[in-house]
Amino acid sequence: MPNGAQALLRTLVNSGIRVCFTNPGTSEMHFVAALDSAPEMRAVLCLFEGVATGAADGYARMTGMPAATLLHLGCGLGNGLANLHNARKGKVPVVNIVGDHATYHVQYDAQLQSDIETVARNVSPGFVWTSQVTSELCRDAVAAVKAACSWPGQVATLILPADVSWGEGGVAEPGPVIEPPPAADDATVQAVAATIKAGGRSAILLGGTALHEDSLLPAARIAAACGVKIFAETFPTRMQRGAGLPPVERIAYLAEMVSIQLKEIDTLILVDAKAPVSFFAYPGKKSYLPHDGCRVMTLSTPAQCAPGSLTALAAALGAETATPLLSAPWRPGRPRGKKLTAEKVCKAVGHLLPENAIIVDEAISSGLMLSKFTAGAPRHDLITLTGGAIGQGLPNAIGAAIACPDRPVIALIGDGSSMYTIQALWTIARERLNVTAIIFNNASYSVLNVELERVGAEEVGPKAKAQLDLHGPVLKLAQIADGMGVRSTRVSTPDEFTNALEGALARPGPHLIEAMVPPALSGLKLKLLPHLLGSLDRMPLSVARMLKRKIAP
Amino acid sequence: MPNGAQALLRTLVNSGIRVCFTNPGTSEMHFVAALDSAPEMRAVLCLFEGVATGAADGYARMTGMPAATLLHLGCGLGNGLANLHNARKGKVPVVNIVGDHATYHVQYDAQLQSDIETVARNVSPGFVWTSQVTSELCRDAVAAVKAACSWPGQVATLILPADVSWGEGGVAEPGPVIEPPPAADDATVQAVAATIKAGGRSAILLGGTALHEDSLLPAARIAAACGVKIFAETFPTRMQRGAGLPPVERIAYLAEMVSIQLKEIDTLILVDAKAPVSFFAYPGKKSYLPHDGCRVMTLSTPAQCAPGSLTALAAALGAETATPLLSAPWRPGRPRGKKLTAEKVCKAVGHLLPENAIIVDEAISSGLMLSKFTAGAPRHDLITLTGGAIGQGLPNAIGAAIACPDRPVIALIGDGSSMYTIQALWTIARERLNVTAIIFNNASYSVLNVELERVGAEEVGPKAKAQLDLHGPVLKLAQIADGMGVRSTRVSTPDEFTNALEGALARPGPHLIEAMVPPALSGLKLKLLPHLLGSLDRMPLSVARMLKRKIAP
Repeated sequence: MPNGAQALLRTLVNSGIRVCFTNPGTSEMHFVAALDSAPEMRAVLCLFEGVATGAADGYARMTGMPAATLLHLGCGLGNGLANLHNARKGKVPVVNIVGDHATYHVQYDAQLQSDIETVARNVSPGFVWTSQVTSELCRDAVAAVKAACSWPGQVATLILPADVSWGEGGVAEPGPVIEPPPAADDATVQAVAATIKAGGRSAILLGGTALHEDSLLPAARIAAACGVKIFAETFPTRMQRGAGLPPVERIAYLAEMVSIQLKEIDTLILVDAKAPVSFFAYPGKKSYLPHDGCRVMTLSTPAQCAPGSLTALAAALGAETATPLLSAPWRPGRPRGKKLTAEKVCKAVGHLLPENAIIVDEAISSGLMLSKFTAGAPRHDLITLTGGAIGQGLPNAIGAAIACPDRPVIALIGDGSSMYTIQALWTIARERLNVTAIIFNNASYSVLNVELERVGAEEVGPKAKAQLDLHGPVLKLAQIADGMGVRSTRVSTPDEFTNALEGALARPGPHLIEAMVPPALSGLKLKLLPHLLGSLDRMPLSVARMLKRKIAP
Repeated sequence: MPNGAQALLRTLVNSGIRVCFTNPGTSEMHFVAALDSAPEMRAVLCLFEGVATGAADGYARMTGMPAATLLHLGCGLGNGLANLHNARKGKVPVVNIVGDHATYHVQYDAQLQSDIETVARNVSPGFVWTSQVTSELCRDAVAAVKAACSWPGQVATLILPADVSWGEGGVAEPGPVIEPPPAADDATVQAVAATIKAGGRSAILLGGTALHEDSLLPAARIAAACGVKIFAETFPTRMQRGAGLPPVERIAYLAEMVSIQLKEIDTLILVDAKAPVSFFAYPGKKSYLPHDGCRVMTLSTPAQCAPGSLTALAAALGAETATPLLSAPWRPGRPRGKKLTAEKVCKAVGHLLPENAIIVDEAISSGLMLSKFTAGAPRHDLITLTGGAIGQGLPNAIGAAIACPDRPVIALIGDGSSMYTIQALWTIARERLNVTAIIFNNASYSVLNVELERVGAEEVGPKAKAQLDLHGPVLKLAQIADGMGVRSTRVSTPDEFTNALEGALARPGPHLIEAMVPPALSGLKLKLLPHLLGSLDRMPLSVARMLKRKIAP
């Protein structure tokens, strides 16, 4: 009879889990020892827990199936918390296996003893369970997988005491049956259809799983047939886009601009999305962004089937056969000039983006123009910072690359963000993943300079400014990456960057390009920002100019 | 009238807090903007929250006063959790300021919204408070400082909503009055004295604050007068040691060896310490380590005054004027030979250790011989991994160096450990701290190879082994450090290492030496380990041989 760990691994495999991102310690040694008993399970070592959790997040975004993580007690879970937060906010399934002391050892309050369950609750409010008996461990594991994979997806945390893991008498279980989510009921569909037909300006806001092709197409048919506007949430978990797919305007990051985007919308219809709220609160500005006269209706909740609900709505509106607007193929030209800027980096990405790429966008202020320059590029997936906890991009890239070994992954990361989980580069090198990381080195927490102004903190002295400044010393990120085994280069001109990206894409494998750029926002006043900070998909320059006029006093 | 943040900073300064280790985001921008209003407060930017919290821990260990941290919501606190755990276990005062959304914004569940209090409770069980009103913020802050600084020290977490921070009407408060802790009451002192006088073998186990000179000296007088043995806890928060101070044998990490250390002890007397328990549980081995016949008495709890209690005990035993045994000055010779080993690194540290140094020991398996080789070195402070959450060493070094700018800090770190908070190197460079970091590169989680065997997981396949192996690629830590602005070198021979250390000590400032060594434990069988894994202070080779004989089957 297998021990607990062996039976647990068999049960995870039975449940369809094929990858475990690990950062183990002593209390997880039996799980580690059992890995070889489950040949179907790939174990990927990470040097920091935030890498493991972010990799599991990225993997599940691309496959729809959870990966497991293996974490070392409360401290390991704590280190993994920020990226689990991003997974939670993105409704992404993850199954955490958190080792703990043996059940009988807890009373002694040894050095690593802490209250794991309270930490887990922050990211796993729906499923935290400490297994108590080896014979029941696998049933607990099935419950964890079921919780993670049900709709909407979530982070489930199974705490595994060492004695439950090493105990004899494990009983492997078959995986859980996951019921497919129901589509919206007919009454809801008819009510939404009636509202659209009644006239007024309606918009559909797509989030979560509703940004995949099977939802985008019926949504675009409705838009074409009924003049409904389509929005995407600000930070998509995974959005399919590019030439041949419907273009979708993303709700902007800046509340000031969202108000403009929603200004003339009478009805906002939610599909696996929330009504837009401000990312942060600002003195004297509102948090809830639809205007007072805007009616908000839910077509499909995160627990329902977005494509099914949209297809039903299209039918109710007679839009099933409407011809959806699709993005035309278009690429920007090769960037020119002597000085590299964040905009030129984004332009080069659009210029060169290969077929079927996965873009991981954690470029923060430097990625402003990425959407515009890739809108007509070959079709690709876009993964973004769903929970706002920076340090997500490089780990997500690991998971995406392991999930889709035949697809190139391009991760665009801010310098500040990159340093939270820079250890990810080692795993990228070790697993020889096809990831090209582009790090924008502008030597600052650039976005915070904007935020400092936005929150109204205007009298800023040198100590305050120093908190946003990454000079002295300027990071040499290419060198750091090379120290972890990733082939790297630092570039300072548009030509150098474009050549480096061409070279990286021509040789699949780990690459890092450190792009030396000025802060994208330097010298801009807040009132000029909105037309830059929004997603510029489908937004012609004339609209941007109009927005700018509206905002300027 | 100041806003909340300005009044808060003034209150922290009034409370004696002089340093804030920061990693802010938007919700902390008013605190950042207010920094310049408090010239007494030094703000030290860290690129990752675990660096900020570990630095605050190291600072407080050396000054006895808390530093503040500035963290960004639940995710920032999560990233800082592991080193706050180490502070909690070390009874170290820390005051966390965790920014949160504005109170009225919480209802909208924006991207970064999470349940901060549950995360904080893991490390701040005694004080978690979310301030609600600007006018009461400073009273809340005084309560936080008071909680942190009272005896025993603890981590206090004050959650600061953005509107409480930016609101007008802050009222700065004077700092709290901290009552000095009482010494043990007379009845306790007399009872312990009577037990010692009654005969039998007694030992005093010193932990926490009882490892400073003012406790070590009365303890050593008692030892000299009454034949009592003195132990130190396994992982001292801060231990003063070296030539001219009483030598103290540390309780070993390995439970197998602790049993031997305590075998002939009839009474174990605790002073700011717990009775020894096993770090982890192991199948079939006991967790609580004093033998069944060992009586455990508490002379002084962590809430009491250790030096006062020990001085009273010395008086009760007539030992006030006894001559304590003090470590004689002794240094090992310069290490020789062609091949660098972890032992030779430790030997070189003992050979060269400057006066009044601070040693931060997170060398894990590579530091086995450090205690022995520095036992007679010039007097120094030793900081160790109190909570077992690795990634503590480099951040602790930052805090210690800022606390004691005139003292050299030498941090010995395992390669695996270093990567959890490698971002600390940037802050060391930026603040030009007098820190020499020595990283042992043995390309493995070496200690886990031992633990894998100890937990009885013996059938180990290639996937399991890969989880403990940091080859493929081997980290180039000197290069990584150079990328963060720290002058670095990689060495492979005893001469190279010793020369590099001499050079670093001769030029105060940031240095990193990457010591290429084989795993310290490779090829050893478990049964040979105990005499190596214990602290070898005062343990002559003959004793080690005896222990080895006792353990071998």
